[in-house]
Amino acid sequence: MPSGGGLGKVHVITGPGKGKTTAAFGLAMRAAGHGYRVCVVQFMKTGETTGELLAARRLGNVEVLQFGTGRFVRQGAPSEEDRAAAAAALSAVRERLAGGSCQMLVLDEVNVAVSMGLVRPEEVLTALRSRPPGTEVVLTGREAPQEFLDFADYVSVIESAKHPFDAGAGARKGVEW
Amino acid sequence: MPSGGGLGKVHVITGPGKGKTTAAFGLAMRAAGHGYRVCVVQFMKTGETTGELLAARRLGNVEVLQFGTGRFVRQGAPSEEDRAAAAAALSAVRERLAGGSCQMLVLDEVNVAVSMGLVRPEEVLTALRSRPPGTEVVLTGREAPQEFLDFADYVSVIESAKHPFDAGAGARKGVEW
Repeated sequence: MPSGGGLGKVHVITGPGKGKTTAAFGLAMRAAGHGYRVCVVQFMKTGETTGELLAARRLGNVEVLQFGTGRFVRQGAPSEEDRAAAAAALSAVRERLAGGSCQMLVLDEVNVAVSMGLVRPEEVLTALRSRPPGTEVVLTGREAPQEFLDFADYVSVIESAKHPFDAGAGARKGVEW
Repeated sequence: MPSGGGLGKVHVITGPGKGKTTAAFGLAMRAAGHGYRVCVVQFMKTGETTGELLAARRLGNVEVLQFGTGRFVRQGAPSEEDRAAAAAALSAVRERLAGGSCQMLVLDEVNVAVSMGLVRPEEVLTALRSRPPGTEVVLTGREAPQEFLDFADYVSVIESAKHPFDAGAGARKGVEW
């Protein structure tokens, strides 16, 4: 493989298709396989039941932190609890960056947290701009704000050309979660 | 999470953007986290140096098999060795399916193997149609053939809106491999 240098760039994984979180965990797995320490901060998620979280814990060098209320966030009318959970997620991001404890940091569903009005793009970018050199960042979720697209080195857009959810199928263990 | 039933469906992950193999390993990680056995058969790949392969081995229930010559396959002029490696990959697929030893089977870069003329779509589909019930299948690579798109339950297309490769940057350990 040609050498392309060390970590430190910013990815946005967005779009209406399924697989954004999955793709981010694939990146986490790749980095972890080479021995990098990975932190995943999940906005608006709870439960600790997903396969990617369970596998990440087994890998050992992938930390997953969840911040959510367990209740559906209403577009345009988030609750105080929703805002508090997102603020706690952002605090965890700042702490991890200040401590220099991860070489890849995933902010899962942060794009959605922004579009729901739980955090402002500028708050996120302020935290990310102060990251230690060599910290790769991955931002996921549909409808990434323009500020994140401008900030990113990589933008991947996942389109769904065909999906059983279109036909009303439910989420399956091991595939959708 | 709502119950959506067991495994057994077919995914195609295609498109010009980066992240198709990564997304497939993310799915493998999710399935493996729930205790499913996963087999990944990689067409046109060798070396065993990628982060995703190293992490998969650590998970224990993800088997990764590579079939490639280590040389670049020339479009329209594959060598006998290229064809033999792809045939060996397809044999491994048939064996794994016959043995019922995996609940998720990833055929990584099989779309490219088809477009290079190393295997015919019909050979692949014949093998996949005879899979045991409950075997989820994931086919990756750019330019998926129409036969695979028709066969799939899920089609995800990854578009690259922004990528440092466009500016001539090299592949980085832990991110691109």
